[in-house]
Amino acid sequence: MHSWIDGQPGTAVNLQNRGLAYGDGLFETIAVRAGKPSLLQYHLDRLALGCQRLAIEADIPLIRDELLRFSSQLGEGVAKLVVTRGDSPRGYAPAPGAMARRILQGAPLPAYPVVNADQGVSLYACKTRLAEQPLLAGLKHLNRLEQVLARAEWQGAEFAEGLMRDTQGRLIEGVYSNLFLIRDDMLLTADLSRCGVAGVMRAALLEHAPSLGLNPQVRDLEQADLEQADEVFLCNSVYGIWPVRLFAELNLNWSPGPLTRKLQAVARTLLDT
Amino acid sequence: MHSWIDGQPGTAVNLQNRGLAYGDGLFETIAVRAGKPSLLQYHLDRLALGCQRLAIEADIPLIRDELLRFSSQLGEGVAKLVVTRGDSPRGYAPAPGAMARRILQGAPLPAYPVVNADQGVSLYACKTRLAEQPLLAGLKHLNRLEQVLARAEWQGAEFAEGLMRDTQGRLIEGVYSNLFLIRDDMLLTADLSRCGVAGVMRAALLEHAPSLGLNPQVRDLEQADLEQADEVFLCNSVYGIWPVRLFAELNLNWSPGPLTRKLQAVARTLLDT
Repeated sequence: MHSWIDGQPGTAVNLQNRGLAYGDGLFETIAVRAGKPSLLQYHLDRLALGCQRLAIEADIPLIRDELLRFSSQLGEGVAKLVVTRGDSPRGYAPAPGAMARRILQGAPLPAYPVVNADQGVSLYACKTRLAEQPLLAGLKHLNRLEQVLARAEWQGAEFAEGLMRDTQGRLIEGVYSNLFLIRDDMLLTADLSRCGVAGVMRAALLEHAPSLGLNPQVRDLEQADLEQADEVFLCNSVYGIWPVRLFAELNLNWSPGPLTRKLQAVARTLLDT
Repeated sequence: MHSWIDGQPGTAVNLQNRGLAYGDGLFETIAVRAGKPSLLQYHLDRLALGCQRLAIEADIPLIRDELLRFSSQLGEGVAKLVVTRGDSPRGYAPAPGAMARRILQGAPLPAYPVVNADQGVSLYACKTRLAEQPLLAGLKHLNRLEQVLARAEWQGAEFAEGLMRDTQGRLIEGVYSNLFLIRDDMLLTADLSRCGVAGVMRAALLEHAPSLGLNPQVRDLEQADLEQADEVFLCNSVYGIWPVRLFAELNLNWSPGPLTRKLQAVARTLLDT
């Protein structure tokens, strides 16, 4: 698949790139259908927020333009956008006036089993806990060793995703997705002000919930919330929504419920347009 | 300056390198004098421990051999060694059988002001707190956004280093060094089992302390420990030891003390041989 660096075809970055040196940057994983990036404004908004919080000076309109051109060439697949704080010599202090670097990489749409969306997935209980760091919480930054360690905890196809908790035991998210619980008319998802990645599909679903009669609530989630949930699902910006059918650690199981099905239809529409 | 990738001259890494994608790797910053890497075995031991804890399969004897050859060419300066979990397609799961990548970059020895070592430094009080993540604590891994944020808190030459605390307020380390306190015959440094980087100079000084009549203690350090310290210093594997003369936040100041001077001599010997 093709890749661009700063708007030009390229396959390698300089060793002085601060993305490599320190994970000093952000990324977005964007579904591309019919030559168009899905959830474009959500991705750009989150990227802009991340750049602001990390004080990375990035030209968002330029990034938007490049992403549109890249997606048009990609046609269908996943566009991974990485923005780093540019290059610098050794040392944590950024080089004055360093330009943010923009990397775009294309990949095929992943071939997830159809049953994941249709019948739901079994959720692994990760032992890796998420550390509490409010300065980085919510951002999709490049410091992802916790996710690497968590994803390495299980192999094989039995589990499609793993549930990550924070060091206090609160339920936070999947390794590469966000977690939602439905109870009565409430759509619950974890507060991500201490840790976690605030996914763009999560943001979109929270926005659309009221139109389905759901009351969105962002708050701390404990084990009891999972035990009391009528429906449970995971979401991200590539696959949309997967119902959770089994969390064996607590001997909990669910059937894909009617509200999950309605939200799945919303997610499909968001990804297809 | 020259740089090698996997033992060959090179200046760029593939976009699929997991160091860039996730900060999935480790690094060592090694002083090189007269063509030889200082504190070689300490660096290799820490790297091996990091690879073991992150399950990165690296050939340490090969890395040692490359580092020796690289240092011989560099002559004098700093060799930065980066070891990443190799390349992989998109996704947190490592590619099966992926080979760790070895990167070596040369840089000149930094031109720190001589007064830093002679008269001591003024220590900035960082607002950025270190998150508690026991799985990564102690390692010199590539997820360094906390240090980037902390180092960006001050500009100019007034402060040579910044003190970082954890989210509970315990004293942990400098942004690019470790912190030591001396009180009576005790040599105190922070327990790094929740966060922080266990520096190789820190390890070497803890080993050498008894030969100077000092009793090394690794434990949690609170503000009161700083207030009660007779001498305070910072250390790392490039500059050795800098006494701390001022911590204005708490209106504390010290003169470089006799035990710090003895340890400085030890550090100089370690760096020169």
